[in-house]
Amino acid sequence: MMRPINVGLVGYGFMGKAHSNAYLKAPRFFDLPAPLVMRAICGRTAENVKRVAKQWGWETVETDYRTLVVRDDIDLVDICTDNRSHHEIAMAAIRAGKHVACEKPLALNAEQALRMARAAKEAQVVNTVWFNYRRCPAIGLARRLVQEGRIGRIYHVRATYLQDWLLDERFPLTWRLRRETAGSGAHGDLNAHLVDLARYITGLEFEEVIGLPRTFIAERPLPVPRAGRRVGRVTVDDTMLFLARLEEGAAASFEATRFAAGRKNFNRIEINGSRGSLAWCFERMNELEFYSREDQDHVRGFRTVLATEKSHPYVSAWWPPGHVLGYEHTFVNHAADIICAIAGRGETAPTFIDGLRCQEVLDAVLESVRRRTWVRVKRHKV
Amino acid sequence: MMRPINVGLVGYGFMGKAHSNAYLKAPRFFDLPAPLVMRAICGRTAENVKRVAKQWGWETVETDYRTLVVRDDIDLVDICTDNRSHHEIAMAAIRAGKHVACEKPLALNAEQALRMARAAKEAQVVNTVWFNYRRCPAIGLARRLVQEGRIGRIYHVRATYLQDWLLDERFPLTWRLRRETAGSGAHGDLNAHLVDLARYITGLEFEEVIGLPRTFIAERPLPVPRAGRRVGRVTVDDTMLFLARLEEGAAASFEATRFAAGRKNFNRIEINGSRGSLAWCFERMNELEFYSREDQDHVRGFRTVLATEKSHPYVSAWWPPGHVLGYEHTFVNHAADIICAIAGRGETAPTFIDGLRCQEVLDAVLESVRRRTWVRVKRHKV
Amino acid sequence: MMRPINVGLVGYGFMGKAHSNAYLKAPRFFDLPAPLVMRAICGRTAENVKRVAKQWGWETVETDYRTLVVRDDIDLVDICTDNRSHHEIAMAAIRAGKHVACEKPLALNAEQALRMARAAKEAQVVNTVWFNYRRCPAIGLARRLVQEGRIGRIYHVRATYLQDWLLDERFPLTWRLRRETAGSGAHGDLNAHLVDLARYITGLEFEEVIGLPRTFIAERPLPVPRAGRRVGRVTVDDTMLFLARLEEGAAASFEATRFAAGRKNFNRIEINGSRGSLAWCFERMNELEFYSREDQDHVRGFRTVLATEKSHPYVSAWWPPGHVLGYEHTFVNHAADIICAIAGRGETAPTFIDGLRCQEVLDAVLESVRRRTWVRVKRHKV
Amino acid sequence: MMRPINVGLVGYGFMGKAHSNAYLKAPRFFDLPAPLVMRAICGRTAENVKRVAKQWGWETVETDYRTLVVRDDIDLVDICTDNRSHHEIAMAAIRAGKHVACEKPLALNAEQALRMARAAKEAQVVNTVWFNYRRCPAIGLARRLVQEGRIGRIYHVRATYLQDWLLDERFPLTWRLRRETAGSGAHGDLNAHLVDLARYITGLEFEEVIGLPRTFIAERPLPVPRAGRRVGRVTVDDTMLFLARLEEGAAASFEATRFAAGRKNFNRIEINGSRGSLAWCFERMNELEFYSREDQDHVRGFRTVLATEKSHPYVSAWWPPGHVLGYEHTFVNHAADIICAIAGRGETAPTFIDGLRCQEVLDAVLESVRRRTWVRVKRHKV
Repeated sequence: MMRPINVGLVGYGFMGKAHSNAYLKAPRFFDLPAPLVMRAICGRTAENVKRVAKQWGWETVETDYRTLVVRDDIDLVDICTDNRSHHEIAMAAIRAGKHVACEKPLALNAEQALRMARAAKEAQVVNTVWFNYRRCPAIGLARRLVQEGRIGRIYHVRATYLQDWLLDERFPLTWRLRRETAGSGAHGDLNAHLVDLARYITGLEFEEVIGLPRTFIAERPLPVPRAGRRVGRVTVDDTMLFLARLEEGAAASFEATRFAAGRKNFNRIEINGSRGSLAWCFERMNELEFYSREDQDHVRGFRTVLATEKSHPYVSAWWPPGHVLGYEHTFVNHAADIICAIAGRGETAPTFIDGLRCQEVLDAVLESVRRRTWVRVKRHKV
Repeated sequence: MMRPINVGLVGYGFMGKAHSNAYLKAPRFFDLPAPLVMRAICGRTAENVKRVAKQWGWETVETDYRTLVVRDDIDLVDICTDNRSHHEIAMAAIRAGKHVACEKPLALNAEQALRMARAAKEAQVVNTVWFNYRRCPAIGLARRLVQEGRIGRIYHVRATYLQDWLLDERFPLTWRLRRETAGSGAHGDLNAHLVDLARYITGLEFEEVIGLPRTFIAERPLPVPRAGRRVGRVTVDDTMLFLARLEEGAAASFEATRFAAGRKNFNRIEINGSRGSLAWCFERMNELEFYSREDQDHVRGFRTVLATEKSHPYVSAWWPPGHVLGYEHTFVNHAADIICAIAGRGETAPTFIDGLRCQEVLDAVLESVRRRTWVRVKRHKV
Repeated sequence: MMRPINVGLVGYGFMGKAHSNAYLKAPRFFDLPAPLVMRAICGRTAENVKRVAKQWGWETVETDYRTLVVRDDIDLVDICTDNRSHHEIAMAAIRAGKHVACEKPLALNAEQALRMARAAKEAQVVNTVWFNYRRCPAIGLARRLVQEGRIGRIYHVRATYLQDWLLDERFPLTWRLRRETAGSGAHGDLNAHLVDLARYITGLEFEEVIGLPRTFIAERPLPVPRAGRRVGRVTVDDTMLFLARLEEGAAASFEATRFAAGRKNFNRIEINGSRGSLAWCFERMNELEFYSREDQDHVRGFRTVLATEKSHPYVSAWWPPGHVLGYEHTFVNHAADIICAIAGRGETAPTFIDGLRCQEVLDAVLESVRRRTWVRVKRHKV
Repeated sequence: MMRPINVGLVGYGFMGKAHSNAYLKAPRFFDLPAPLVMRAICGRTAENVKRVAKQWGWETVETDYRTLVVRDDIDLVDICTDNRSHHEIAMAAIRAGKHVACEKPLALNAEQALRMARAAKEAQVVNTVWFNYRRCPAIGLARRLVQEGRIGRIYHVRATYLQDWLLDERFPLTWRLRRETAGSGAHGDLNAHLVDLARYITGLEFEEVIGLPRTFIAERPLPVPRAGRRVGRVTVDDTMLFLARLEEGAAASFEATRFAAGRKNFNRIEINGSRGSLAWCFERMNELEFYSREDQDHVRGFRTVLATEKSHPYVSAWWPPGHVLGYEHTFVNHAADIICAIAGRGETAPTFIDGLRCQEVLDAVLESVRRRTWVRVKRHKV
């Protein structure tokens, strides 16, 4: 077997937990071409990062990512910090010749993303963005059906990512609700996933967009009262809807919101083409709806494919048919793919270029809001 | 065009309304081979029957079915009175040489049903039982799929008819809850439909059965206090479950209940065979679930066929695809078929023999309850 | 009882069938305050209109609507001709002092609709537009829940009306696919319904819109080859998506298409508010999805209300709980309401003013397409 | 913190994988009162067991369970071997004073199970059976709703466990299809789960049962031809249906099959009571359907509770709302509970007594088949 691949993780919040679990499980469920070593975890507060390291089995800890990225015993730098620091950390890691995996969105804007994509390309390192929903078996199946020609020419993409955790007016003004710390609100957080899924499944790029943002609750309690003020202004969107024209003339709509009562993680996409349709929703992530116009007329209908068969992507690593997977498996599947790519078996997508393409779309939407008109999506050469 | 076919209806309750509507609409939506005339309606209370006649356009009224059945200007006697009188009225109609349509269950027991079936056969009159659910387009489609061999050898039938209108303990002790007036409870009322659907879709007869009845609320308020008593004893089943062995070894289960909170008219049947499966529920009556093992492995799944296409039974008489039908359309479809059969175009099923076969199964279940063991279903020669 | 109300119907196509059936059934199922007489039906081809009159029981026929609208024995003129003639016929009927019911969309543009609404108001005649989906019991329930405050402040409206009958490239270039005869494509036909449903359920008006049309198949075979050409140009939209800002800041999206494989009459609307959510789809028209934030935390969820209870609108006229209704019942319910309104019992909505409001939105969307920017919806004073 | 709890696992097949994963993850996701050490794994083939040990991080290996159970450094013996050996291994472990966890079904028959339950009780060791479905958050919620009185008196239990992996006639005659090695077929494998779920959710015991078994395909190819024969006889059931009378008069039905085309792991249970209903299916394991008669009449309906909230059992250890769990999480949740129980925090159910109760029901069903009549379930005193 090959020499081990050593992972260094930067960040240990919600995503840190998802990634740690992924590295822990990947070698147990997948037949990896090289041993995976959870070598180091990095965070600014030593006490916390030590606790997490112990809990998950990270061998060592760092409190400064700059130290981590230059360590000789690190092959892969995985970044799951807040969005603002992605660019800086990734650039440092690439400069140090490390392979990089970065949480989504790749950067705060297309300019940053472009630099990152170019640097990664020049350094010829493995690079990937954690658009984890690509690794739901049902999503992989969706892409396969498009590639098999079962959907035909694509006419419609209809995507919504609905959550409801901001409905409570007493929810405080955290960093996620301020532009300077979060970039945007639901748009960067949730539309990013939708844009990537649409690109991944259909293989089509975005041509032109126009957006509609709303901030429904303009003021929220400050977590800590400041200068005598108890409330502060929300400076990001609570929701962002946008329309898009895709390549080949497809008409698409997107919506991200944190104000849809009863929708918890309702990441849903539907695709209609000349030969069939697909629909998927994360809340029932193991199922893919598929309609084929090639079925005989009297038995046509949306079929619910339970994507837990050996013939579906990643499933053979897991459990028997009907023994459903959950959210975390998307990360384990991705981790396995990253290790394989580093070991030279296969390629890993989405790459930083995919992250850039997504960012270009998100940026164009924001520009369309400022200018109140349609905006063409610029596609940068990497 | 042929000479008109004159209908005489006996009874004007809930079913009288459904049948009147069926005769009113059938000639408007279907291209019938002969004119249909709503000639007479019969009921014991002159005032009521006159009111109904006026509302629905019945030309004349009778207050004694014996007068109705011998009228020269009546071709078809349709019976939708309470179960006790089906036998008597049908026999009189047949003796008078009339075609007969009778509400389900055909009779109070197999003995009665046998006499009715024999009489109808000898008289060579058109005869049918209103198992209306056969005329849902989705059910017709289900039968077709079995006949096309898409289900293969049948292993399982799983049927439940769930309602909840008896949950309220204050619901009074009406005639439906006393054996002497109703024969049985949920069993005769609801299992009758399930048995007919199972026979219709699969084409298989019942071999052997065993039942489990329960009466959950043993006493109920009397509608009118009698002899100083305010409550009386419920003497029919609130629920009846039974297992059955069908022809060719299929294993089947049936359940009828009026105590399933939230289930309003949940008439559901699922069939599993060697090549595929079917599932249908009346509360979504326009949909048929179909699973085919002949689909390619990675796209197998239950497909929801919206049975509103021209290629589905009866649909071309109605509305465009996706414009769903409701409960009452089952009766209109049946009425159209009856008129066609009388006019010599096609045959009408279910016949009285089907009504008899159903009754034989219901009777065997009751016997299995008394004897606490499996009972073979006797099939009488007609 | 009051003197009879005499109906004259103009048009006898698909909608003529739906309206004839509505007038036939309304007096049978509803306790109307006055008798309804199907007095006259009007169409240009004498032979055809006579056949339809006979089939449905219309007493007399006319071949020129100008004759019909001035007949003394007509109280209500019902218009279900093609969209181009709505304005002309309705204006004539109003001038003759008749009550008017008109198919949707009310007119070809807001200018026409405004004239019609003003004329109807001045003449003080009962006037209504057949936005039939308002009369699904589940939709009436949806409006009631909003009015009861169970949804709270409305944040989102998400509406799609998806069909697939134009997917076949060989489908010919009928009048519906040419601007000069149809006005627009999916937009006027389907978005009209969505706009009305959104207004009806939420009570909110539209502020600003922007649209995205597509014509996916630009050329189609001519029904009759002309001047040696076998194909012609499609000049209406195959799909129209639009975003909207509603009153009180709600963010809304709309989509009408005839190119969504597998969607037959998928008229769906979802509404998210500060206290709860609603979702409904016509293909399961008897069901309303309702989520309430007032439920206890551990039992919150979208509940599927089967809108077939006596407590739901219109249901008591029909069948017992769980005995579902279909497409045509929406028309019967509306016909009953119209007769009541003419007889002075209750008022009928949607009125021509509602038809105008809908048209104003549709027009603004078309303007936004031409100008490639957001367009404010002009609300005309009637 | 307390001294570590050392686990020894016997068996390393499909269930060995599920258990290993559970022990790996439990300390990472749950705040356990004591460290968990994966001390030893035991299997008969040294080479295989060493490979599994390495993959999952078991510290040592054994090839004879008798050696394992007496090791001083083992606190918990976990048994996931084939059914025949459960009794022998568990008894040895108990004799050695170890805590025991055993895969379901606990034993081959009630006699064995009774001895095991008694031994465990006398030895006062923690003992549990891996009826893992109890640990779906939605199932825990179901039980809670019953205990809160929201379902009321229970009238109906309707349970089916449907799979389809035996439909292929070429599937070979493995040990699972022979009575001497497997005890029974679908009955012991799948009905065992249903019986446990019914008992767990409702709190009711079984009174009386009657069963219907079928073996649809009587002969199958031998994995290895023997004595010139290429096929052998299937000696277990392919399906077993049974009816049951539960305590308090509830009427219940159960069905286990491996012949239901399209059903992969369709473990479904519905419960109807005087105040409400519950329904759950493993294939959508994160959802619980709940109907309450206490909702206002016009908004009653089955609500789909997505059981991913902090207020639902086990969820707070995992991911945010809407981030669904999968099959394997049931095992991790159980493992965490076992460790807690051994450390003295809380009790672990289901115990061996629950395993016995389940076995008593399964045995009674088999007896009812032999005797063709209803059989009372004997409840042994432990």
